[in-house]
Amino acid sequence: MDSDFGIPRQLSDLQKLRSLYQPELPPCLQGTAVRVELGDAAEAADPTDAHTISRFFPHTYGQPLAHFLRATAKVPDAQIITEHPAIRVGIVFCGRQSPGGHNVVWGLHNALKIHNPNSKLLGFLGGSEGLFAQKTLEITDEVLSSYKNQGGYDLLGRTKDQIRTTEQVNAALTACKDLKLDSLVIIGGVTSNTDAAQLAETFAEAKCPTKVVGVPVTLNGDLKNQFVETNVGFDTICKVNSQLISNMCTDALSAEKYYYFIRLMGRKHSHVALECTLQSHPNMVILGEEVSASKLTLFDLTNQICDAVQARAEQDKNHGVILLPEGLIESIPEVYALLKEIHSLLRQGVSVDKIHLQLSPWAFALFEFLPPFIKKQLLLHPESDDSAQLSQIETEKLLAHLVETEINKRQKAGTYKGKKFNAICHFFGYQARGSLPSKFDCDYAYVLGHICYHIVAAGLNGYLATVTNLKNPVNKWKCGAAPITAMMTVQRWSQHPSASSIGIPAIHPATVDLRGKAYELLRQNASRFLLDDLYRNPGPLQFDGPGADSKAVSLCVEDQDYMGRIKKLQEYLDKVRAIVKPGCSQDVLKAALSVMSSVTDVLSVMSSSGNQKSL
Amino acid sequence: MDSDFGIPRQLSDLQKLRSLYQPELPPCLQGTAVRVELGDAAEAADPTDAHTISRFFPHTYGQPLAHFLRATAKVPDAQIITEHPAIRVGIVFCGRQSPGGHNVVWGLHNALKIHNPNSKLLGFLGGSEGLFAQKTLEITDEVLSSYKNQGGYDLLGRTKDQIRTTEQVNAALTACKDLKLDSLVIIGGVTSNTDAAQLAETFAEAKCPTKVVGVPVTLNGDLKNQFVETNVGFDTICKVNSQLISNMCTDALSAEKYYYFIRLMGRKHSHVALECTLQSHPNMVILGEEVSASKLTLFDLTNQICDAVQARAEQDKNHGVILLPEGLIESIPEVYALLKEIHSLLRQGVSVDKIHLQLSPWAFALFEFLPPFIKKQLLLHPESDDSAQLSQIETEKLLAHLVETEINKRQKAGTYKGKKFNAICHFFGYQARGSLPSKFDCDYAYVLGHICYHIVAAGLNGYLATVTNLKNPVNKWKCGAAPITAMMTVQRWSQHPSASSIGIPAIHPATVDLRGKAYELLRQNASRFLLDDLYRNPGPLQFDGPGADSKAVSLCVEDQDYMGRIKKLQEYLDKVRAIVKPGCSQDVLKAALSVMSSVTDVLSVMSSSGNQKSL
Repeated sequence: MDSDFGIPRQLSDLQKLRSLYQPELPPCLQGTAVRVELGDAAEAADPTDAHTISRFFPHTYGQPLAHFLRATAKVPDAQIITEHPAIRVGIVFCGRQSPGGHNVVWGLHNALKIHNPNSKLLGFLGGSEGLFAQKTLEITDEVLSSYKNQGGYDLLGRTKDQIRTTEQVNAALTACKDLKLDSLVIIGGVTSNTDAAQLAETFAEAKCPTKVVGVPVTLNGDLKNQFVETNVGFDTICKVNSQLISNMCTDALSAEKYYYFIRLMGRKHSHVALECTLQSHPNMVILGEEVSASKLTLFDLTNQICDAVQARAEQDKNHGVILLPEGLIESIPEVYALLKEIHSLLRQGVSVDKIHLQLSPWAFALFEFLPPFIKKQLLLHPESDDSAQLSQIETEKLLAHLVETEINKRQKAGTYKGKKFNAICHFFGYQARGSLPSKFDCDYAYVLGHICYHIVAAGLNGYLATVTNLKNPVNKWKCGAAPITAMMTVQRWSQHPSASSIGIPAIHPATVDLRGKAYELLRQNASRFLLDDLYRNPGPLQFDGPGADSKAVSLCVEDQDYMGRIKKLQEYLDKVRAIVKPGCSQDVLKAALSVMSSVTDVLSVMSSSGNQKSL
Repeated sequence: MDSDFGIPRQLSDLQKLRSLYQPELPPCLQGTAVRVELGDAAEAADPTDAHTISRFFPHTYGQPLAHFLRATAKVPDAQIITEHPAIRVGIVFCGRQSPGGHNVVWGLHNALKIHNPNSKLLGFLGGSEGLFAQKTLEITDEVLSSYKNQGGYDLLGRTKDQIRTTEQVNAALTACKDLKLDSLVIIGGVTSNTDAAQLAETFAEAKCPTKVVGVPVTLNGDLKNQFVETNVGFDTICKVNSQLISNMCTDALSAEKYYYFIRLMGRKHSHVALECTLQSHPNMVILGEEVSASKLTLFDLTNQICDAVQARAEQDKNHGVILLPEGLIESIPEVYALLKEIHSLLRQGVSVDKIHLQLSPWAFALFEFLPPFIKKQLLLHPESDDSAQLSQIETEKLLAHLVETEINKRQKAGTYKGKKFNAICHFFGYQARGSLPSKFDCDYAYVLGHICYHIVAAGLNGYLATVTNLKNPVNKWKCGAAPITAMMTVQRWSQHPSASSIGIPAIHPATVDLRGKAYELLRQNASRFLLDDLYRNPGPLQFDGPGADSKAVSLCVEDQDYMGRIKKLQEYLDKVRAIVKPGCSQDVLKAALSVMSSVTDVLSVMSSSGNQKSL
């Protein structure tokens, strides 16, 4: 299984050049001292969840935010760590491969060696399975040489992405003890980092000295919250897909006879689809979040697309490009309900060919209405997280089929007067996942790897490495760490009554914020994208020249720097304390009291009005 | 339909940079004089075809090869054209869009203006339909500015790709007369250039002064013969697809649980699949030409792939990447025979749902054996050239399905002991077609555009613009023109008895030469590619730095320069004539006679032994 992991790879000329690229470090990570400032205790965004989370994570909930500072920063409370004993760290890829993952390993290795050349980094071979089986590869400069700035996870590989059952957690605990690890670094998305938090808690409970650290690496870009601006891999995935989408747009415009329906990766949420739309300007995108929010049915969607096709035909345009995320199918209410019934019957052991007989009358009616290929795909067993096998369900073909039928109907009725409607479907699923990472992802992952060392040096457990202010150049990036438990929420209900996740704290994938700036940008341009063919081709991923340093549009339009603002606020509070210290005048003290009292009132009201979601 | 053609496009930063790129001209095209040397009459490669071709093309068959020379070249016979009256040229995109097509227009426009600023270039809007309807756009620097070095055909668009019926030919003739065109330049592949030759003959017959010129632009890369080394677009398509294939390889290696079956464009022939294999080193490729040559059945292919999967499983490798060309399905003998029956019944007007009832017993048996999705796709109406709708037939899914069934059988029998076989299928069809063209395609297309002017200036009709020595830098490129009729062959039989092409000369798509060097290179490495995972990622298309100047492997390994050799031979013959001129010694004359007599004998025997195919 793992015989090939970590062996030197044959590199093409471009890969060789990339392997020589050295990402920059922000000032706060330079030098050999680690300066950490611990802020206030980080709490869950929703106060009603906080109690549950603290109950599940008694040892690791309520820990402070950590900021890493540059050597010259004037922060009196910062702890300066100058002693760096040799340590042993394990690192494991969990979950789907995401471009840039290798650079986390490299960054961490580099940071370890800078602080103590005797420190050791052990990579687990074959993901969590390798962790349980204690299969390791010692990371060295030589091992890394053909993996620096390269895509894939083939340095270490990955298999399953769960460390959750008691058996798995115990195997991980045993591995960390046996291998005498000072720290275990887990590279992954929402699921893996939830597991990391659980592991950290278990380790703390068991007095195991291994500190667990998480790193946000997932091409879906859905590990997003007040502490995390974006994930390693998302930038590359969006750039590679945007290149291909733009090629399809140019193609559509040249041939003038096809509608391309393109399904993009993105699981439950539509971050990739939104970002690619902002980069390539296709005619239309359907976001799962919009469909959920407006409760659009399959018929609504069909009509929406047909109206668009018809409006374009009236302008003599018989071509177009329409994007949809793979998670869309689950966002359509009646299809979701049908899937729920199917999955429940599958769990009861009903055989696939008998399922339709046991559906409720209306679910049966919908099922019978669907074309055979979709029926077959809907009958697939659900994935481990209860969701449908989204990559296998050809939603783009279903919509193309329904649109074609409806357009033909309209043509007969005389309402549609355009050319014959021709749809061609594509799934851009796996093409981008193994790509060479973009410069941004190379830099971001490398910096996160370095931060992992700082977290370990600061003795923190159950933290996620974070970088904020990412839309600015690397030398402006702010590095820190946030307790993973502070990113959790508690699901109190589920459409799967049997779902094991109810009531259990977890990091949940972030949805596209329909009140956010990226979505606003889309809405402002949607009608021009639809009718005016403002196709824009960012071109193939470049590593030099124009475009090489571009960043995701959705990253740049958001005004995110939450970690920076938390720090800024602390500074203000410290300033107030410094001004109004014992000995100040009565007037100053009275003024301070009056102002702070009203500030406290306003904030209390705001915090309790359930407005916590609009971060 | 054409309201949007030629309007300025919004360009991304990278596109803007590319629009400023100025391709170089080889020395023979520089300056303002046109020097042309006319060689011997170019004949068809197969002497038995020559008679038929000359009968169909009395005015345009047997014309000489033309070489364009640099101003300083010492060639006594070269004609020097220094007078350049203002001329009017029309240009039309025929057939599928291919990256680089825009640069032919730019190159020609540039050459026209250099030689006479009053010359005019008219682009036909919407392909051949625009030609028939005389819809034109005058090409100017301003119009070109956002299309230089850009992909797609959206400057002029294209619709149908045929200029063949009497009605169409007459419409083209009328257009050329009405618009007073000195020349009509047709940009396209094998079909369009066959049409160009026909048009040239008709124009000559009708004493229409418009000279017809063809340009080899087709991403399939199948307009290949002794005069043409490669086609505009092929380089880009292979690079973009190789990037994606390599990403899939990295992905397969990281996840270690999937077999990716990837179908590539390529119509009848497997040039794209071969080139991508040489660039990316996937585990396996199935070329249509191999299947045809070895008469492999669906079962043979299934077993071949299963054996490969099994051999890899024995090395603990449960992942892989397998390429196939879209034309593969027609290369499998029994499927081809089935398709032939289906198409014949469709032509007889049998309705789709009744066809299976009228199949011959064994065709019926095969049809019934196939999974439903393929049945439906095989029942699609054939294309205008009698071939199946290859882009719509998911051969990759069929093979994956058959392999999965067979592997499961072997697993039960205990012969296959690997992990569960998981196939994921992809069609890389349209993703690359609208790409920004590679530097090579930008240069090649631009130079071909220039050559078109030289052809017109030399008064040639029915010629294809050619560049040889392409594997060397641009300043070594040799420019010329070859009569299109010399590239034709005559099909004397067809598996479609009704095929209209029998006995009619045409350029036929070149197959992958199973005795050629590119295929030899593949065979030498095939077993290592299969077992050793020598995946190589050329990376995304670059315009600067390593890889930016790389050329197709199959172009570079072939030792092609046929046009150069023809010229070289002429030089030798001229030298002999110069040495053995009246006044030379008797001994020299005797030696010359003796040697030339045996040379003539040897060549006569070789030429008549039917060995003409191995060019």
